[in-house]
Amino acid sequence: MARAVTTREEQREAQAYAAEQLAAAGVVLTDAERDSIEVADFGLGRLREAGLLVFVYVNTDRYCAKELILYPGQTCPEHRHPPFDGTPGKEETFRCRGGLVHLNVDGEEIVLRPGEQHTIPPNTLHRFQAGDEGAVVSEFSSASRDDLDVFTDPAIRRTG
Amino acid sequence: MARAVTTREEQREAQAYAAEQLAAAGVVLTDAERDSIEVADFGLGRLREAGLLVFVYVNTDRYCAKELILYPGQTCPEHRHPPFDGTPGKEETFRCRGGLVHLNVDGEEIVLRPGEQHTIPPNTLHRFQAGDEGAVVSEFSSASRDDLDVFTDPAIRRTG
Repeated sequence: MARAVTTREEQREAQAYAAEQLAAAGVVLTDAERDSIEVADFGLGRLREAGLLVFVYVNTDRYCAKELILYPGQTCPEHRHPPFDGTPGKEETFRCRGGLVHLNVDGEEIVLRPGEQHTIPPNTLHRFQAGDEGAVVSEFSSASRDDLDVFTDPAIRRTG
Repeated sequence: MARAVTTREEQREAQAYAAEQLAAAGVVLTDAERDSIEVADFGLGRLREAGLLVFVYVNTDRYCAKELILYPGQTCPEHRHPPFDGTPGKEETFRCRGGLVHLNVDGEEIVLRPGEQHTIPPNTLHRFQAGDEGAVVSEFSSASRDDLDVFTDPAIRRTG
């Protein structure tokens, strides 16, 4: 059976939604940056349920900063960031900017509201879901290698 | 001759100013965070001219994220981040959130307006000055060790 895919139109809509949510959270983007917002559906083709919109400020071989934007109720599926290149894997701090996010770290439930943050150790299973108004979450971390992420659901492919 | 020092009242005023500027840039702080804003006068006792207001989100041994808030015309004096603990020294990315900042990196002048950013290599001399409306600048970096900073002006002490 063919897998449903996120269409170009859904991707453009998602980028526009993310840019609006970022603007509401006070984040100013250039036009080129707006067009670079990543729309991740994890290969599942159910973007509004399982997915993530990502704007990357910077990702060097030492540190990374991103904004994560979620649709209302949207979930980023459970995954971990494994060791690579002699490092323990990506360590990351989530800080909620707008809306609300339910973060599950190794089974522990944490709710983040604007101005609240939590740090996730390397190689630790986690997932997160936005509340009814969606969410904007800043992510500060060590170097990011999304292509190495290990997802619990074997159907997931992380591209881009 | 006794060196002028920044008074407690100036420090409280500066924290209030920083919190206002952050709020205007869409950054929500908790009450405890507001009280933790660092007021750095570099031991010069001329805070409004030479100084920096700093809010640290997170600083692990791998990465760091801060907001830097400057008074109108305030300068953070020239310095570099030297190698330490087997690393090449702090690498940092400045992104302007509000106002305007004149950044000088090894003699090169760069103006950053909201939504514009620049990455400064480790161990590279730099200074920056806010425009007439002050500035709010996000700093994403590798681990931060302010106590190791090397300033060009020998009169400077970096504390805190």
